[in-house]
Amino acid sequence: MADVKEARSGQKKDASVTEITPQSEDFSRWYLDVVRRAELADYTEVKGCMAIRPYGYAIWELIQQGLDRRFKATGHVNAYFPLFIPASLLMKEKEHVAGFAPQVAWVTRGGDEELAEPLIVRPTSEVIIGTLYAKWIQSWRDLPVLINQWANVVRWEKVTRPFLRTTEFLWQEGHTAHETEAEAQEETLKILALYKEFAETELAMPVIDGQKSESEKFAGASRTYSIEALMGDGRALQAGTSHNLGQNFAKAFEIQFQGRDKTVQHVWTTSWGVSTRLFGAVIMTHGDDSGLILPPRVAPYQVVIVPIPRGNWQETVLPKARELQAQLVAAGVRVMLDDRDAYTPGWKFAEWEMRGVPLRMEIGPKDIEKGQVMVARRDTREKSSLPFDGIGDTAVRLLTEIQQALYHRALKFREDHTQRVTSYEEFKSVMEGRPGFVLAAWCGREECEASIKADTQATVRNIPFGSQRVTRSCVKCGRDASVEAWFAKSY
Amino acid sequence: MADVKEARSGQKKDASVTEITPQSEDFSRWYLDVVRRAELADYTEVKGCMAIRPYGYAIWELIQQGLDRRFKATGHVNAYFPLFIPASLLMKEKEHVAGFAPQVAWVTRGGDEELAEPLIVRPTSEVIIGTLYAKWIQSWRDLPVLINQWANVVRWEKVTRPFLRTTEFLWQEGHTAHETEAEAQEETLKILALYKEFAETELAMPVIDGQKSESEKFAGASRTYSIEALMGDGRALQAGTSHNLGQNFAKAFEIQFQGRDKTVQHVWTTSWGVSTRLFGAVIMTHGDDSGLILPPRVAPYQVVIVPIPRGNWQETVLPKARELQAQLVAAGVRVMLDDRDAYTPGWKFAEWEMRGVPLRMEIGPKDIEKGQVMVARRDTREKSSLPFDGIGDTAVRLLTEIQQALYHRALKFREDHTQRVTSYEEFKSVMEGRPGFVLAAWCGREECEASIKADTQATVRNIPFGSQRVTRSCVKCGRDASVEAWFAKSY
Repeated sequence: MADVKEARSGQKKDASVTEITPQSEDFSRWYLDVVRRAELADYTEVKGCMAIRPYGYAIWELIQQGLDRRFKATGHVNAYFPLFIPASLLMKEKEHVAGFAPQVAWVTRGGDEELAEPLIVRPTSEVIIGTLYAKWIQSWRDLPVLINQWANVVRWEKVTRPFLRTTEFLWQEGHTAHETEAEAQEETLKILALYKEFAETELAMPVIDGQKSESEKFAGASRTYSIEALMGDGRALQAGTSHNLGQNFAKAFEIQFQGRDKTVQHVWTTSWGVSTRLFGAVIMTHGDDSGLILPPRVAPYQVVIVPIPRGNWQETVLPKARELQAQLVAAGVRVMLDDRDAYTPGWKFAEWEMRGVPLRMEIGPKDIEKGQVMVARRDTREKSSLPFDGIGDTAVRLLTEIQQALYHRALKFREDHTQRVTSYEEFKSVMEGRPGFVLAAWCGREECEASIKADTQATVRNIPFGSQRVTRSCVKCGRDASVEAWFAKSY
Repeated sequence: MADVKEARSGQKKDASVTEITPQSEDFSRWYLDVVRRAELADYTEVKGCMAIRPYGYAIWELIQQGLDRRFKATGHVNAYFPLFIPASLLMKEKEHVAGFAPQVAWVTRGGDEELAEPLIVRPTSEVIIGTLYAKWIQSWRDLPVLINQWANVVRWEKVTRPFLRTTEFLWQEGHTAHETEAEAQEETLKILALYKEFAETELAMPVIDGQKSESEKFAGASRTYSIEALMGDGRALQAGTSHNLGQNFAKAFEIQFQGRDKTVQHVWTTSWGVSTRLFGAVIMTHGDDSGLILPPRVAPYQVVIVPIPRGNWQETVLPKARELQAQLVAAGVRVMLDDRDAYTPGWKFAEWEMRGVPLRMEIGPKDIEKGQVMVARRDTREKSSLPFDGIGDTAVRLLTEIQQALYHRALKFREDHTQRVTSYEEFKSVMEGRPGFVLAAWCGREECEASIKADTQATVRNIPFGSQRVTRSCVKCGRDASVEAWFAKSY
């Protein structure tokens, strides 16, 4: 196979494919390089707004499908609410307005007319949905209302980064209303568990779940819960939140119903969301210096086939490559056959590696002779010749293996970067060195939380379930600790 | 079956279900009643903006899936572009700005800052996409670019109506770039044909396809094509448009590429879209005085099962109803088992009829005894007892029949309301009487088009393909007619 190898390795790689800053040199630069080189997103002429390019959007579609299927399986339905919200509505819930008013975009003119009351572009939809739920809900028979919306939202951001923080972003926001406080709490935690299972199963991304501190909870919520993932640079990323809103919005918007006992009561509401940010998390959890590494379940192409152009390859190799493609498609695999003439195999190898395709299959005259396909894994870079026969099943098995391997690699990385500390000195030294999650006892006072942040940049990510039973001393002030909390520097 | 019949017919119907204005009394009022009663959409506190309720959104999701599948099968990919557009970009294509500037919403403030340059909320995305295509396209190798976007857009409308004309609406907009004029024209017509096939196959809605007149073409297009459907009141509705943009936007945004011959050239672009308006068309094509009639392919529930509560029905009837449901689901049918205790069968019959579910299946003790199910068709209101055995296949067959019957009924209605006229008197008398489509020779001058509109409210809907070969006299002025055109009063 010497000649084939030569053909495969002797290609001059295109500079545009390989120019990615190494992670160790500058992780943030690496991230931006990957987003641009892999054609996931692009900057636009609108400050802070990105365009999501087809390859990036295809990943988002797979994320959407995986979530939407889970929402529907748990009894939720989709709906759509207006983009614009009268400014006066935002003002009705006092904590909510304080949290969001500073970062909204204002529409003050429509066509030729100045608006009597300006509209805001939704930063989130609790208030507009609140006005409708007040109309739609009359009786306990109308409950629960379990609605989700896929939409764009806008938050006026000063510093932006593709997928992680953009002025406009895409997300889903669930808004539910319940008869009792217990049901609302059950829903809040059910969704948090759904997010965790989704992130771990589909994105191969381990997350820690727990409750947010007072200072980090959603504006207007009674309790906020989150899932948090650890990125390749040791910083945490909030990947999804689920809020128990109590009766705060129900009271602000008079969402009332006649109960089973005929009394008029306020409903109990929840809201919850994940956004295109999840996609940024995928990039930073799995990627390496060659670019993106996609978990097979959210890879637009799970296999790329590169035919090796020897001799009259379009008559010999290409038909076999098409047969290979057909077998993979029949096995339910998403395949790209890269039969472009204008690019060399070497260029294609680097290109699809950079774009994170989990498996590459090379097929040339020698492979065909032997009834084999050369298969390269993106995650381990292992290459092996595998029999053409039964390649569909082989691919499915390998993709399952890769999905699991990525999860376990990310889990091991997180475990290697997680430490329980008992002294503040230890806390600070971890944050100065190789950062990650630190689990530490905390008195629960905002004062200590703020000092820790000022000293180390680390914030409370969330408080693990059941941690209330711990009796220790606050890592900062030494007072009795009410909880243990996860701390980390974060995105 | 006397006792069962009694149970089924003796119910007092809830006024809220039956209060729909008859079509003959006021078609427009009928439409609004159906939208509200069937919980398709609701007004909100934002002028001209609607909320699409879960039942309406489920229909929209089926419409989306049917279109998205077709776009992908023809090589298109999805992407996402920013909601906001700097006002200066809109100004770059002079016809485009003239068409859209009067109806855009303006964002003038973000957070606490007044914007140096106001942003408009996209009314359509040619200009923002143009700036990106100029970056992304360098060589003929990058062509064609075949991108679609699912998004919300905003047009500041004075008079609005749910689904048909709203300030914000949901749509898809395709934006493609090509190497040659011929390819762009081929794409434009390919999509028009795709829209027609979609409307006829999925929505059971016959449409006429053709080219728009100069005065009705898209602002900035070289040529606009449309599909037009006839509503139940004899007015036409534009259900989709496909534009050949020539090099107009390519020149305004400098979208250039190096050709196969090494010369630098401008690309040729197209754009095309359908919106939530399609859904309004479905309502007005098929509905009757009892409410909505949904074509099975876009019905969220294709079958509703109503168990008849006799005796200890929850132990006897309900298990059999569940078995029925399972058989239908296994046959790939979308089913709702309405086992709610709080409503009577009579109320449920009227409710689901009003919501347009194609098939209702009633099952009570007597039906079970006989191994039968009572099946009622929404379109013909025929009721028949059918064997429980093989009910899955029976349902699939009936749904296919209903889909076709609805198409043929709508086609017949259109044919009955289509007339070729040769004199202007005839033209006017048709438009005064039972309106519909009129096919008439036209000189092609805007002057005649405007006079006809002033006299009759009818506008040129589109010009059928191949009609250029006709040699007749203009129905209005008597000059040589260059074309025949479809005229109608329209939404």
